[in-house]
Amino acid sequence: MQWTVYLSGEIHTDWRQQLKQGAETHQLPITFTSAVTDHAASDAAGDVLGKEVEDFWRDHKSSKVNGIRTKTLIERYDIAVVRFGDKYKQWNAAFDAGYCAALGKPYITLHNDDIIHPLKEVDAAAMAWAQTPEQVVEILKYVISKQ
Amino acid sequence: MQWTVYLSGEIHTDWRQQLKQGAETHQLPITFTSAVTDHAASDAAGDVLGKEVEDFWRDHKSSKVNGIRTKTLIERYDIAVVRFGDKYKQWNAAFDAGYCAALGKPYITLHNDDIIHPLKEVDAAAMAWAQTPEQVVEILKYVISKQ
Amino acid sequence: MQWTVYLSGEIHTDWRQQLKQGAETHQLPITFTSAVTDHAASDAAGDVLGKEVEDFWRDHKSSKVNGIRTKTLIERYDIAVVRFGDKYKQWNAAFDAGYCAALGKPYITLHNDDIIHPLKEVDAAAMAWAQTPEQVVEILKYVISKQ
Amino acid sequence: MQWTVYLSGEIHTDWRQQLKQGAETHQLPITFTSAVTDHAASDAAGDVLGKEVEDFWRDHKSSKVNGIRTKTLIERYDIAVVRFGDKYKQWNAAFDAGYCAALGKPYITLHNDDIIHPLKEVDAAAMAWAQTPEQVVEILKYVISKQ
Amino acid sequence: MQWTVYLSGEIHTDWRQQLKQGAETHQLPITFTSAVTDHAASDAAGDVLGKEVEDFWRDHKSSKVNGIRTKTLIERYDIAVVRFGDKYKQWNAAFDAGYCAALGKPYITLHNDDIIHPLKEVDAAAMAWAQTPEQVVEILKYVISKQ
Amino acid sequence: MQWTVYLSGEIHTDWRQQLKQGAETHQLPITFTSAVTDHAASDAAGDVLGKEVEDFWRDHKSSKVNGIRTKTLIERYDIAVVRFGDKYKQWNAAFDAGYCAALGKPYITLHNDDIIHPLKEVDAAAMAWAQTPEQVVEILKYVISKQ
Amino acid sequence: MQWTVYLSGEIHTDWRQQLKQGAETHQLPITFTSAVTDHAASDAAGDVLGKEVEDFWRDHKSSKVNGIRTKTLIERYDIAVVRFGDKYKQWNAAFDAGYCAALGKPYITLHNDDIIHPLKEVDAAAMAWAQTPEQVVEILKYVISKQ
Amino acid sequence: MQWTVYLSGEIHTDWRQQLKQGAETHQLPITFTSAVTDHAASDAAGDVLGKEVEDFWRDHKSSKVNGIRTKTLIERYDIAVVRFGDKYKQWNAAFDAGYCAALGKPYITLHNDDIIHPLKEVDAAAMAWAQTPEQVVEILKYVISKQ
Repeated sequence: MQWTVYLSGEIHTDWRQQLKQGAETHQLPITFTSAVTDHAASDAAGDVLGKEVEDFWRDHKSSKVNGIRTKTLIERYDIAVVRFGDKYKQWNAAFDAGYCAALGKPYITLHNDDIIHPLKEVDAAAMAWAQTPEQVVEILKYVISKQ
Repeated sequence: MQWTVYLSGEIHTDWRQQLKQGAETHQLPITFTSAVTDHAASDAAGDVLGKEVEDFWRDHKSSKVNGIRTKTLIERYDIAVVRFGDKYKQWNAAFDAGYCAALGKPYITLHNDDIIHPLKEVDAAAMAWAQTPEQVVEILKYVISKQ
Repeated sequence: MQWTVYLSGEIHTDWRQQLKQGAETHQLPITFTSAVTDHAASDAAGDVLGKEVEDFWRDHKSSKVNGIRTKTLIERYDIAVVRFGDKYKQWNAAFDAGYCAALGKPYITLHNDDIIHPLKEVDAAAMAWAQTPEQVVEILKYVISKQ
Repeated sequence: MQWTVYLSGEIHTDWRQQLKQGAETHQLPITFTSAVTDHAASDAAGDVLGKEVEDFWRDHKSSKVNGIRTKTLIERYDIAVVRFGDKYKQWNAAFDAGYCAALGKPYITLHNDDIIHPLKEVDAAAMAWAQTPEQVVEILKYVISKQ
Repeated sequence: MQWTVYLSGEIHTDWRQQLKQGAETHQLPITFTSAVTDHAASDAAGDVLGKEVEDFWRDHKSSKVNGIRTKTLIERYDIAVVRFGDKYKQWNAAFDAGYCAALGKPYITLHNDDIIHPLKEVDAAAMAWAQTPEQVVEILKYVISKQ
Repeated sequence: MQWTVYLSGEIHTDWRQQLKQGAETHQLPITFTSAVTDHAASDAAGDVLGKEVEDFWRDHKSSKVNGIRTKTLIERYDIAVVRFGDKYKQWNAAFDAGYCAALGKPYITLHNDDIIHPLKEVDAAAMAWAQTPEQVVEILKYVISKQ
Repeated sequence: MQWTVYLSGEIHTDWRQQLKQGAETHQLPITFTSAVTDHAASDAAGDVLGKEVEDFWRDHKSSKVNGIRTKTLIERYDIAVVRFGDKYKQWNAAFDAGYCAALGKPYITLHNDDIIHPLKEVDAAAMAWAQTPEQVVEILKYVISKQ
Repeated sequence: MQWTVYLSGEIHTDWRQQLKQGAETHQLPITFTSAVTDHAASDAAGDVLGKEVEDFWRDHKSSKVNGIRTKTLIERYDIAVVRFGDKYKQWNAAFDAGYCAALGKPYITLHNDDIIHPLKEVDAAAMAWAQTPEQVVEILKYVISKQ
């Protein structure tokens, strides 16, 4: 059985790469999916539809174009991993977590213990909280391949 | 027809009070609902079930107790207003917005224009973005009472 | 038992008024709901949130504010009546009909026989096609009050 | 991952063909689906079930037969493109858009800027508005294949 | 708590009346609902929308008008009772039962033991099979009012 | 694209076989599914779980075992054909039709014109009514393979 | 706002009564609902439909009659409390918990700490675990009435 | 057509193995799925995320990690078999059964006749009750492969 794992959140460290390598090492039958993680391309996703004068509308158009992808991938995944780093607002990651929760779909949070308190609602609806990519790989290995 | 308006997010300014007064002034048939906004009480919501040694589990228990309330209220509302202030992470507000979006229920965001960019995904799924409580009151008045 | 009847479409003739009077005449327990039918007010629904330079965005904002109302009312109704007149594109009426159909909720179309062909998909998913408000009143009377 | 893109609306220009060629050029993994676009065949879809005297019933039968196909394809697609041309009522396209919206599924509108105003409700629920097939191809390429 | 009980099926005996009297006798808080049980009126439900030449279309129109009522009432009920008598095809009763089953809503069948075999699929999805109206009243009394 | 067509109802004529041959002749990409059509085997489906004294319970057990299959197949099909012959009660076919209708899934009825009246509710929720297997094949060919 | 609290599980101690008194003491706007808790009456719920020879079928009939009530009440509640005592199998309580979990509805478990391990799956899907009725009352008071 | 059969419950006898062998013997196209059945590994599923002081939280974490797997498999299966042995509380099996029931998905129970009474609610929502693995194999063979 093939599993689809959706990776949401932080794009400034290589955690996605670590998860992919871990899955490869253990030969787990996983297809990883994700929003576009090229920051500049993501911000410009709607530009092809016409330039905007107002920042709000440029962001709006790009977010919706990105939403075509993320909404579809979120509704298709089996397990999501939502990563919060130590910088930026990362409201999109919390938004994704809420979206997953409302769909009743399982997600794992990945973050350090210094942001436990502000993430308490996000963690409360998660199936697991991990602090390192290695832990996530172990969980995926167990869930997917353990006899 | 009675409308239920759920107020999510920031608890450090009096925006909830302003909305309630505005609704009263215009005699709008609105029942306002909200998470518990007493910060200390909210953090301690699970303490009655037994003290915890680990911060994570204390937060976890309290968040789930709070979730009994918020989940129910979110599934019952007609219109939500999600407020982002200029302090703190406010991931719970973004989480609520994602939850509302996944349920396909309408929400209005309320925030200043200096956080347009990090809120772009949250705004993209909203039905309106307001910058002041007065604007929200005007929208509610129009939506609910305009003939 | 109280029934809620949603009236969608054309705003240039008095068909809504005729339905209301008919319901009153027969003392039917109906609450009628509708989008805002004041054309100028509807087009300006989003203006309170800030003026827009581009027509597209002004329309976009107003449509979404109107959507807060229509989406809620459509999800609450028991029977909808969707009216197509002989002028204008009226794509919003066809959009509403598609929305109702996808929700599996019953609607009645109200239009003359000279637009049968272009409305065939809309009529095919309807529970009835009426040509006059009087006919709709008769149907409502039968459905709601016939022993 | 294979994506399914449903093409709804106008059948008098070659926009469907342009999208297919664009997808082929960029080797996008897309399966395109559509209602039957042969106008005469579509109008006659129900004739095999017996001739009708009344135009209304002939249209009714054919629309329902076509509905077996479109309903199924709409519930299976990942992304829809809804095209409005400059002729005819095209209520079926607006109906499809409303249907997609109620299912919470993403669609892109494709139309010129001279019909922005009558399409405002349809556009307000869309994830993007494009004016040319080339723009749609760019969006599909980004959404589906961008790393 | 008020309960809504939907009565479907046979219209040639007074079982509906017996259930209502039984509920009254025991002062059960029940609102009974039903399709229109006046046979001639039911067959003519669509006539107000225009006479039809073909029997099929007359039946079709009337059934859809009746469907506006039954579909709404079926989606609102708490308990349904589906009655099969000893005459006629009564496919509408079996259709209602299938509809209730697919919605996951509880229904009780009411029929004699000489039609157990042809009703086996209908009974298999029922919550109870009763042979007399008195038994149904007892079940309703127990379910609704037993402390 | 492969389509799944569920065949429900009458088991005494060879209409299933005719549909399969028609689909083969036209090389339609259809997987046909069906309840078990061996009457004796179907009635005995639950016997392996222990003999029953009462007819009711024997039927009950067998119907539920058959339900494991039919429920699953009904939830998986793309198009259903529900056949009513001229003998027997055939309540299971009407039950299946109601089940399909409540799921919002398309079905075609197949029956002679002498039972139009008792089948009016079943036909009213159908997407088409055919009188011969040849007509059904034509509809399937059009819906599935027409460009 | 009135809240509905469903009480599931153990019937041999007075925990239901304690919750009701606690709610009364704090004047909480709660309507309590429950399965029939009269053990003998519950076991005999189906007897009115005819005596059974086999124990299995007597239990089966009574459970289904009870299911008419519990299924309806479970789908209507806002908060459930599922109580596990120290005797008997109590599989019906675990079954109820699973049912609530699948519906995505919040429930609180109430049990001593000596059965933590066998209840771990039931607790993992709960919103809170309480050991005494007093704790449940405190949680209800907080969730329902805290400003 | 490939069928997925989920095996829930008791892990101390070889019933899973017997079902697999039976399916192989009859060459049934079945993919069997299951929770992790290695008891020690299952209890330790969350340990990789950090050791816990409190038993409750260790169980909690492990149950949630296991839930990522079971929730996904339960939502994907076609037929479930829920086995109750003669030892232990087995609340997780009853919880799974309730979960399946609420999703409206078919399951078969497998248990001896000495626990009919405490399992009556679980059996009442099942599609079949079997006492031996051989019976389950027969049912699967019939449901899946009978022409």
